[in-house]
Amino acid sequence: MEEREIQVGLLGLGTVGTGVASIIKHHQETLSHQIGRKIVIKRALVKDKKKVRESWLSNLELTENANDIIEDPSIEAVIEVMGGIEETRLLVERALKEKKHVITANKDLMAEHGSTLLQMANEQKCDLFYEASVAGGIPIIRTISEGLSADKLTKIMGIVNGTTNYMLTKMSANNRTFDDVLLEAQELGYAEADPTADVDGIDAARKMAILSSLAFSSPVQIEDVSVKGIRQVSDVDLAFCQQLGYTMKLIGVAQKDEGQIEVRVEPTLLPNAHPLANVHNEFNAVLVHGEAVGETMFYGPGAGSLPTATAVVSDLVAVMKNMQRRVNGYSYQTPLFQSTFKTEDEIQSQYFIRLHVYDRAGTFAAVTNLFAQHDVSFEKLLQLPLENQTELAEIVLVTHSSSVAIIKKLLIALNQLSAVDKVASYYRVEGGE
Amino acid sequence: MEEREIQVGLLGLGTVGTGVASIIKHHQETLSHQIGRKIVIKRALVKDKKKVRESWLSNLELTENANDIIEDPSIEAVIEVMGGIEETRLLVERALKEKKHVITANKDLMAEHGSTLLQMANEQKCDLFYEASVAGGIPIIRTISEGLSADKLTKIMGIVNGTTNYMLTKMSANNRTFDDVLLEAQELGYAEADPTADVDGIDAARKMAILSSLAFSSPVQIEDVSVKGIRQVSDVDLAFCQQLGYTMKLIGVAQKDEGQIEVRVEPTLLPNAHPLANVHNEFNAVLVHGEAVGETMFYGPGAGSLPTATAVVSDLVAVMKNMQRRVNGYSYQTPLFQSTFKTEDEIQSQYFIRLHVYDRAGTFAAVTNLFAQHDVSFEKLLQLPLENQTELAEIVLVTHSSSVAIIKKLLIALNQLSAVDKVASYYRVEGGE
Repeated sequence: MEEREIQVGLLGLGTVGTGVASIIKHHQETLSHQIGRKIVIKRALVKDKKKVRESWLSNLELTENANDIIEDPSIEAVIEVMGGIEETRLLVERALKEKKHVITANKDLMAEHGSTLLQMANEQKCDLFYEASVAGGIPIIRTISEGLSADKLTKIMGIVNGTTNYMLTKMSANNRTFDDVLLEAQELGYAEADPTADVDGIDAARKMAILSSLAFSSPVQIEDVSVKGIRQVSDVDLAFCQQLGYTMKLIGVAQKDEGQIEVRVEPTLLPNAHPLANVHNEFNAVLVHGEAVGETMFYGPGAGSLPTATAVVSDLVAVMKNMQRRVNGYSYQTPLFQSTFKTEDEIQSQYFIRLHVYDRAGTFAAVTNLFAQHDVSFEKLLQLPLENQTELAEIVLVTHSSSVAIIKKLLIALNQLSAVDKVASYYRVEGGE
Repeated sequence: MEEREIQVGLLGLGTVGTGVASIIKHHQETLSHQIGRKIVIKRALVKDKKKVRESWLSNLELTENANDIIEDPSIEAVIEVMGGIEETRLLVERALKEKKHVITANKDLMAEHGSTLLQMANEQKCDLFYEASVAGGIPIIRTISEGLSADKLTKIMGIVNGTTNYMLTKMSANNRTFDDVLLEAQELGYAEADPTADVDGIDAARKMAILSSLAFSSPVQIEDVSVKGIRQVSDVDLAFCQQLGYTMKLIGVAQKDEGQIEVRVEPTLLPNAHPLANVHNEFNAVLVHGEAVGETMFYGPGAGSLPTATAVVSDLVAVMKNMQRRVNGYSYQTPLFQSTFKTEDEIQSQYFIRLHVYDRAGTFAAVTNLFAQHDVSFEKLLQLPLENQTELAEIVLVTHSSSVAIIKKLLIALNQLSAVDKVASYYRVEGGE
């Protein structure tokens, strides 16, 4: 065992940064057993040195100047847990130029600039690891790039945003509204003061871009992901889901058929028996389908101080093993394929559609005729009077698989039909056919 | 990219061996993209060269003499998928002495001789990888040793034998007997002609020895695992499970509290909502608890030609990446801890107990008094008349947590009680308290 310590710098000392410090403190014995060196946090970058912190952190040297970390030659690895994109990218680039290995938990950064940063790390013979950027405590990056490396992956489907999963779980279980549950999630610290990135699906889309780039060895940018968030999900939608045997989840899907890719994030109905339908609260889970392995699923905490820090420090262990063997800097792989994305003509899906219609003779026939004209058939259909609306009724149906393009045409035509007041909502249905 | 091929030798061309050949054939493009070299199976060891095989295997050079592989200097890695222990151990040792890397799917070999073989590989600067030996397509070895390397693992709990999970699923769903379902499993190829290793829990115990050695960095031998198989599980037991809201599974548990370890495999009752209760048929799943990460679960096919071969070939990719970087032979880690095992006094569990008692005044009081004397209390209790037995009744109960030693004393005392005909069955209950 080398007696030498490894000095690391922490960029950020928030929730995850504190978790990293805690794991390094409490698991030092098992960590140094694996890597033969003691880990020491030399310095941590914070916004305000004077902020009151937990007393066990008092030994940690703090700085408000990133240069104290980036330019310190004794620091061999930098852990980036400060978040943000542009400023952070500059720091990570400078760290790599200084030949420091980088571990990041930052999915925003990796989704936007991952490919460039990984190439730069490769050129600098530095490791750039980012296990913590997707699905916190679940080692899904490593599973895709190493555990299933021999397989051709065809589909990744997951719940990769804990905030929205918590919210949908509470909305479904207790028939509560979006606004009500959002407030609670903010109070509990599951949602940010500005919840946009989570509730509009952007956070999940970034993670799906990272996972699909890796799984399909094809570049996938955030712009390539079709995204719909959960703001418009109503208690009425959720009540009908329940009645029809479905659970609504914000699902990320990345799929590859015959060289063509589709990546999307949207609220999706799953049959209650589907493995992802039973992933509740802030938990994450990722289903991976491979040609050879079939279906596998990986489940765990998607966020939180210690779970995310576990992923960060496990990456640090990998960096240190590579240092021991002098083989850092191999994490980047040029994509094998160019990405071709499916058009809406080529994407097939079942849909849940909820309509407000005028409650009079001929309505039902007019609606069903329009479906027939578009060659869309039903798996399930309900017609009910609409509460507090004497003139209107509600038709709720689940279609058989059809192309997204046809469904969109159909939705426009439905909105124009005189028998229809409006299309109240529609969602994709997965795992039903 | 190096233009050179890597030549590998296959020891065995059964179910898994054929899967390995298939993956190497069909995924060659993505494989060589990752490792910069083409994989060629130079030769495969078989028992009978003349046996009729699928036509796509006809290009493969076969031999009945292991020396043609072990002594061929052009073969750099050996894939052992022949099974068996002693003869195979000699071949693996000889391959390592010839400086060939070894990938094995053999849990029997690894449970019995893993520690010695891993040390030998380390001395020879060779890799010895064995991802496929536990839970087929689930990369659980890599997850424990790398993905969660920063954490202190406290508990591994899993369904790691597909045969018995298939059998218990069918027995539970259709109220069928052990013998009936075993016959079907044998016809479908899920169970061997001699099903002993599976149904008596030995296969699962070997896998738990492998997982717990790794997870706790402590040597665990097969003899250290307490094992009970599923032969004595009756349709009556399963019917009561159902009635009480439990699912019976053959569960492996490895647990470490304050330095003390318990490893066991036995049919166990789980509350229906428990994640492992919903793992059906031949699927495997492993729950991993870590101090920092909390609870994670990994689910997938536990056996089968292609899933297991995925793990084997992913290991081969890891070997080849290491070859590229010239860092083979680091897979062995000296255990950090000596193993101290819990005694039955120190192990706490809930129990399901089913009694046949004489249906007369005072019986119930005598039985419950005996429980009270042993300081064991109930969570649930049923008394029912016993079918086709006018003199006897059945008492079924679930205790609160108690030490295993006390429960065993209580079971002996119950058998001696004049009010009791016999203890018909008893099982541990997990995840209830």
